[in-house]
Amino acid sequence: MKIVPGDKLAQEIKQKLKDTIQTEEIHPKLVIIYAGENEASRIYVDKKIAWAKEVGISAELIRLTQTTTEELLKITKTLNEDAETSGYILQLPLPSNIDTYKVLENISPKKDVDGLNPISIGKLYHNQKDHLISATALAVLECLKYVAKYQDDNQYSVDEITQEADELLAEFLNEKNILLINHSILVGKPLTALLLQYKCTVTIAHKFTKPDRLGKLINDSDIIISATGQSGLINKDMVHDGQVLIDVGINKSAQKIGGDVDAKGMENLDIWLTPVPDGVGPVTVAMLLNNTVKAHIKGVV
Amino acid sequence: MKIVPGDKLAQEIKQKLKDTIQTEEIHPKLVIIYAGENEASRIYVDKKIAWAKEVGISAELIRLTQTTTEELLKITKTLNEDAETSGYILQLPLPSNIDTYKVLENISPKKDVDGLNPISIGKLYHNQKDHLISATALAVLECLKYVAKYQDDNQYSVDEITQEADELLAEFLNEKNILLINHSILVGKPLTALLLQYKCTVTIAHKFTKPDRLGKLINDSDIIISATGQSGLINKDMVHDGQVLIDVGINKSAQKIGGDVDAKGMENLDIWLTPVPDGVGPVTVAMLLNNTVKAHIKGVV
Repeated sequence: MKIVPGDKLAQEIKQKLKDTIQTEEIHPKLVIIYAGENEASRIYVDKKIAWAKEVGISAELIRLTQTTTEELLKITKTLNEDAETSGYILQLPLPSNIDTYKVLENISPKKDVDGLNPISIGKLYHNQKDHLISATALAVLECLKYVAKYQDDNQYSVDEITQEADELLAEFLNEKNILLINHSILVGKPLTALLLQYKCTVTIAHKFTKPDRLGKLINDSDIIISATGQSGLINKDMVHDGQVLIDVGINKSAQKIGGDVDAKGMENLDIWLTPVPDGVGPVTVAMLLNNTVKAHIKGVV
Repeated sequence: MKIVPGDKLAQEIKQKLKDTIQTEEIHPKLVIIYAGENEASRIYVDKKIAWAKEVGISAELIRLTQTTTEELLKITKTLNEDAETSGYILQLPLPSNIDTYKVLENISPKKDVDGLNPISIGKLYHNQKDHLISATALAVLECLKYVAKYQDDNQYSVDEITQEADELLAEFLNEKNILLINHSILVGKPLTALLLQYKCTVTIAHKFTKPDRLGKLINDSDIIISATGQSGLINKDMVHDGQVLIDVGINKSAQKIGGDVDAKGMENLDIWLTPVPDGVGPVTVAMLLNNTVKAHIKGVV
């Protein structure tokens, strides 16, 4: 079993952003709207803000314990027009009284660093390039890029967001059979569009897929991208040599944080795995910052 | 082998539209922009216009033999603002000198009766309901609805666009394994979003899927929706009892018009098939008219 070192990847992406921000003398700003009492979200919010500051992005937290759709629409309007704000996100999930779609729809596509505005999604499905894409989806691609690059020269070097790495990824993904276990607008849906662009054959499974069918699909796929939060959904008896397992799941027990994959007994298999924690998670935060810098450079109002 | 009678379905949808238009005393109008010299398109354009008039929709053809992106953008602007026009489409493909995406992006989502504007696509992927959807994708669902309804009471009655039929379709599609052989923005992509809403597990294959893999996927699926234009892509040796084959392919030889499915030898199998011609094709035209009436009723400017 080979491990994709998400933490290392994230650090490299951050270093690159830091260099860009210093060299270009730019001042990007990320705003995070965090509403409600979802405590799980808090850890992510804190990390996003801390890492933003580390690379030289100003970060502002708008903390709302009680709010309404109307208030959030007012805030999006202000942020859309604010020349200082390069990009902003709504930390999801929002409280149940909020019309989440309506708020997402009102985020300016130029500042939509989570890629959730319908125009961002529509452009992605139209294979356009001038839009922002879900940081989670991009993080999955970065992890696959690592595998592609490693397989190419048996060692991985720093410069991972390069044209060359993109070509290696395209070559690696070409004609691959991919299983997505997630059909959300943050993970499964943007990844479907991206992987089709890379000429992959894509299967989208989810909680309504029967277990025996899911087992068969896992067995039949070259790459499995799982984001269910269901501990032990994938175990050693379901996988085989040559597969890549991208674990985007997160669940917390009293003891520890884990993903969808139970890696016990996989040690001697010739597979790739992104661990949880320290796999896709930190790369996602890094790609959110990358989106923020991208939005800033392209012009924000 | 049981045949989905597309022609009959189309006639029933048309009759229903005719009744609505007369009862409601409305005057919907469909405009078709037909640019270039693609002769295959001509037949479709003529049929759309003829059928529109049959049901009481005014139909206007804007015929352009030579055009530019700028001219098309001017036309979309005029049509977007025209209170008489309920909906309009660009007959695709456009000539190669045209930036097709840029023109599609400028169709008002309210009049986008082919469902190709990025906002229409983005809303579809967000599981919203207040937008227009590709007529081809809707036609595929209508054909599946026919199968669902037939299986339920062993005979099909007229009133196919009803709440009850929708529930039967939902029950029929629930947990089904579906193979799409097409990943275009007109067919495969909207169908992916729709079928996920119906809790299907969806695989998207295309011309980059290797033949042996495609054979395996066809064998493994409950419903196969094929739109490649490749004659004989699916033959009797690849399918088995219990499957539904939706043939959206069209190809013309000197002798005849055919689809992706070679039905020879399938006669004794317990399968459903939409024939070509007279399957999904006429239902697509009927659903375009249905979209036009829907757009008209919702308000067009």
